[in-house]
Amino acid sequence: MSEIKNLTDLLIKFRDDRDWKQFHNSKDLALAISIEASELNELFLWKSNEDVDKERLKEELADIISFVLLLAEKHNLDPSQIVKDKIKLNAQKYTVEKSKGSAKKYNQL
Amino acid sequence: MSEIKNLTDLLIKFRDDRDWKQFHNSKDLALAISIEASELNELFLWKSNEDVDKERLKEELADIISFVLLLAEKHNLDPSQIVKDKIKLNAQKYTVEKSKGSAKKYNQL
Amino acid sequence: MSEIKNLTDLLIKFRDDRDWKQFHNSKDLALAISIEASELNELFLWKSNEDVDKERLKEELADIISFVLLLAEKHNLDPSQIVKDKIKLNAQKYTVEKSKGSAKKYNQL
Amino acid sequence: MSEIKNLTDLLIKFRDDRDWKQFHNSKDLALAISIEASELNELFLWKSNEDVDKERLKEELADIISFVLLLAEKHNLDPSQIVKDKIKLNAQKYTVEKSKGSAKKYNQL
Repeated sequence: MSEIKNLTDLLIKFRDDRDWKQFHNSKDLALAISIEASELNELFLWKSNEDVDKERLKEELADIISFVLLLAEKHNLDPSQIVKDKIKLNAQKYTVEKSKGSAKKYNQL
Repeated sequence: MSEIKNLTDLLIKFRDDRDWKQFHNSKDLALAISIEASELNELFLWKSNEDVDKERLKEELADIISFVLLLAEKHNLDPSQIVKDKIKLNAQKYTVEKSKGSAKKYNQL
Repeated sequence: MSEIKNLTDLLIKFRDDRDWKQFHNSKDLALAISIEASELNELFLWKSNEDVDKERLKEELADIISFVLLLAEKHNLDPSQIVKDKIKLNAQKYTVEKSKGSAKKYNQL
Repeated sequence: MSEIKNLTDLLIKFRDDRDWKQFHNSKDLALAISIEASELNELFLWKSNEDVDKERLKEELADIISFVLLLAEKHNLDPSQIVKDKIKLNAQKYTVEKSKGSAKKYNQL
């Protein structure tokens, strides 16, 4: 079984053991991702770029991944495939020629 | 090679082809995750829970995953392992007994 | 009329001219605040702390204020009063003695 | 003195009593706004649109307003003026004719 499928199965078992599927509509799953992402950002608030509590970093990243996998599963999306597809799209928006060494957004290049 | 390691390698190649490592400090990678999560949420703004553009859903989820994998790699974290560890922690915070059928936060159970 | 009441009235007129009250439930107004806050943050992504486009800063701050005033009005809250009340609460959580010169969160002081 | 100027003065006194100006660069103030906005959103997570704890709603709105006023002050922006300017801009992007009764974004109208 694939690594990501395996993780997703663990998350779904955790969810179903608690009868939480009823709460996991797509809009709230997206909201949960955003809230966990914000908790990740709070680790860096008022701090310099690399000054972060590594244990809490692990936990917040794990929370984000978990809700991402649950939302992807709900829509029958293959996380590996959508990332590969997006890399191809981004390769067109951000050609090496135009974007090398530049942090500008594609619509400002 | 593992599926997640393979994706991470693709993302790092994309980044390095563009000489973007210089911008990818931990604080800004966390910020990027949050911004992409917010773009995901915008797909649902003023809409009902399941009314979402599936193509854009794919793209925003892919963007979140990409920055998550890059931040994890920067800190030598194994995404599968941190998710498994967090599931164990959450199993203690959210015991089946206390949390079954409840959407309350662990500190309000 | 108070300055904030005047702004709120302008925002409500704008909303009602477009028949948008139907979309402005509390959860989506909160989501809108978060999305606008994220657009504000995007102005700083991959940049140093004070490197910001001032025109866009004005616009994003204005968007956040607008949705905050609309959500406050929906709940009959007086923005001035809730800020004054919160300053009093924070004065207890963050006493000068404990928090002077420290960026720590109150539960870590 | 104007209502907003008065609030801003209270916030600055609170900040300066604690010697916190050193932490309040523009990027972190923007991040703080986003984190507080996310805490506001957490009040609605897994809940229906109007099911919110009103005391916590007050506190989270107050926190957002506070950091917005501090960031505006740092850039010598008049909050009332930027909201009025944005309403004018939005009146052009969202004409009554095109946007009445529609929640679509201006670039999709």
